[in-house]
Amino acid sequence: MVDDTSASGAAQPEGTTESLHDTADAPVRVRVRPDALRPLLSAVGALVDECRLAFAADGLRAAAMDPATVAAVEVELDADATESYTADGTVVGVDVDRLEEVLAMADGDEVATLALDPEAYRLHVHVGEVEYALGLFDPESVRGPGDVDALGFEHTAALTLPGETVGRFVRAAGMVADHLTLAVDPSEEAFVAAADGDTDDVRFVVPREDTTAFEAGEARSLFSLSYLECVERPVPSGTDVRVTLGEEAPLGVAYDVADGGGHVEAFVAPRLQAV
Amino acid sequence: MVDDTSASGAAQPEGTTESLHDTADAPVRVRVRPDALRPLLSAVGALVDECRLAFAADGLRAAAMDPATVAAVEVELDADATESYTADGTVVGVDVDRLEEVLAMADGDEVATLALDPEAYRLHVHVGEVEYALGLFDPESVRGPGDVDALGFEHTAALTLPGETVGRFVRAAGMVADHLTLAVDPSEEAFVAAADGDTDDVRFVVPREDTTAFEAGEARSLFSLSYLECVERPVPSGTDVRVTLGEEAPLGVAYDVADGGGHVEAFVAPRLQAV
Amino acid sequence: MVDDTSASGAAQPEGTTESLHDTADAPVRVRVRPDALRPLLSAVGALVDECRLAFAADGLRAAAMDPATVAAVEVELDADATESYTADGTVVGVDVDRLEEVLAMADGDEVATLALDPEAYRLHVHVGEVEYALGLFDPESVRGPGDVDALGFEHTAALTLPGETVGRFVRAAGMVADHLTLAVDPSEEAFVAAADGDTDDVRFVVPREDTTAFEAGEARSLFSLSYLECVERPVPSGTDVRVTLGEEAPLGVAYDVADGGGHVEAFVAPRLQAV
Repeated sequence: MVDDTSASGAAQPEGTTESLHDTADAPVRVRVRPDALRPLLSAVGALVDECRLAFAADGLRAAAMDPATVAAVEVELDADATESYTADGTVVGVDVDRLEEVLAMADGDEVATLALDPEAYRLHVHVGEVEYALGLFDPESVRGPGDVDALGFEHTAALTLPGETVGRFVRAAGMVADHLTLAVDPSEEAFVAAADGDTDDVRFVVPREDTTAFEAGEARSLFSLSYLECVERPVPSGTDVRVTLGEEAPLGVAYDVADGGGHVEAFVAPRLQAV
Repeated sequence: MVDDTSASGAAQPEGTTESLHDTADAPVRVRVRPDALRPLLSAVGALVDECRLAFAADGLRAAAMDPATVAAVEVELDADATESYTADGTVVGVDVDRLEEVLAMADGDEVATLALDPEAYRLHVHVGEVEYALGLFDPESVRGPGDVDALGFEHTAALTLPGETVGRFVRAAGMVADHLTLAVDPSEEAFVAAADGDTDDVRFVVPREDTTAFEAGEARSLFSLSYLECVERPVPSGTDVRVTLGEEAPLGVAYDVADGGGHVEAFVAPRLQAV
Repeated sequence: MVDDTSASGAAQPEGTTESLHDTADAPVRVRVRPDALRPLLSAVGALVDECRLAFAADGLRAAAMDPATVAAVEVELDADATESYTADGTVVGVDVDRLEEVLAMADGDEVATLALDPEAYRLHVHVGEVEYALGLFDPESVRGPGDVDALGFEHTAALTLPGETVGRFVRAAGMVADHLTLAVDPSEEAFVAAADGDTDDVRFVVPREDTTAFEAGEARSLFSLSYLECVERPVPSGTDVRVTLGEEAPLGVAYDVADGGGHVEAFVAPRLQAV
């Protein structure tokens, strides 16, 4: 843990080399391990450059929809998963990649402090030797997703499998095509990813026994590979993901990070079948 | 080992998500560790994009000559080096890099199954969760080398040395020139690679005691560096290579892979000496 | 250690495959571990392509100033830090990166021999199996720095800290701007690197207790980030650097390599404050 009291000294001289802000009485002040927050920012940053970040009473929340409105993601970090948490419900617009880069400067187990300066409209990030003042945007100027929860309700089949497996079938499909079919065959008790190319076809089969949960049901939809990549790439290695599917319905991909204190839920809209 | 019987089920519904082919009674069916086959494909793929692949009675064979007919390579995998081998002598034309990429999707020690579908003219590759249907070409449309064996018979000197050493003298020569002289000096009992640049010269000496076999004889030829790179790059690390040389004669580079069950033999034609 | 007596044989036949030069009675002949010399060449090569290299009685010396005359570096390798050292004070012009590349071909602990051929005006570098003849330039044609020592005398504060810390504050500043302020605050007893961007600011604080030496004094100057990068990048990992600072004065960065037998001293001129 980092002792950041040095940032809250008394009278200090003027100029860029002084402490950026006294954060002790900030309306939002979160102390968090960078490793807990970064996978959530990665999941959002894979779809958008800027997002709305809400400092709600029970935790941090961000949501984003890609400009073409094909994919959406919601992430959440429980207040309990932080080292300390003070928040008043403020919602800000933030440069996702930039905040992730700042947290990436942490050395080992250093705890980062995020403190809101409402007057200067900046988020002060203190991590190790670094004090970073991040300019914020009006959250109204940032596109947010519509009612993301509604998208996930239509699924007819669900399964839980290693995130690495998702990465493997996305790469296998990418060898032959730019879209792929995801399906569950209840009689075969298998999840199937399949792609047809001009000369080659590929089919990737995950039998029920290679999953940790399997709710069988007729499901079959076509997806654009590039959106699946955006959803799959940020999954931390060693993470199990819950996949939900339907008949020409959105794909849901959900997983936990930060020892269960962080949550990612992503959706990808299906493409029209070329049948 | 992979149990691929799941691919040979009974009646299956139509569509891309079904098993691609029932391979149990294919005229060619080879079960092989990807690690045994990949270095052979790398050696061919360094020279050409497409090659002829023969499923002979005693093993797999491929051969290629680069478009400028300066370098040629022959590779072979003994039937004994596979897990199981059924073949009828069929020769097909294949996209070398693509087949290597498919095998690269194997996870650890998974065995791959290659099965020929003569009607659809495809090679079915089943490795782990992946079933890949690889489109084949008419072998007559693919350039094959002439009588490669004849090229190797003229050598006057030979030596065996680590593949890494070949890599080192190719890189050293590349610092100053785009061609290099390879020679054996019987009186010095040394192999010498030398290159002359505009301002700098480099000479790389391998004395007999740093080789594992050394047949001395007058030998000296000039080679194009880019072709030597194509021959050297695919040599797996830790592999000894047998180098054969002559007077203004082709260079031969031969080595075994897959615990001695796979064989690579490459030849590079000399350039005219600029003397 | 390498036995390079094989290069000094009796009568040898003509041609590129013969030994390049008999170096036994060269006026300059230095046997040195490549690892001792390479970090010095890296420090020079980060600023210039060509430099003057002096084979003085007590050791090797090189110095360089970048074309814009903002940064300068002096490096030195004590004769005692070599395996053997014979020199007559010759100064040559040398391609720094090329000499470093040649030394990089060394395998493990091999000792390199550098021998001057004054007639052909080449430096013969013998390392492992490689004999490299490096063409030299007239040292008068190579820009050298002026009186570098004078630059370092104006400092009002100094501190010693890990080279990695320098790398971290340079990267942190680079997130928001292309220049940064380096300062020492005597009352705070801290070294501060700070950069102001269009939307974001960053401040990097190193308190006295995180340094291994700290001479407090008022110091504050603005520097161009790209020059600091050129000075910081070649610092070998695990190396402590001594930083000297003044009021709108040059920055000095000095460190030892090769177990204390090699010395690097770099200076960067300040930019005008935009105040």
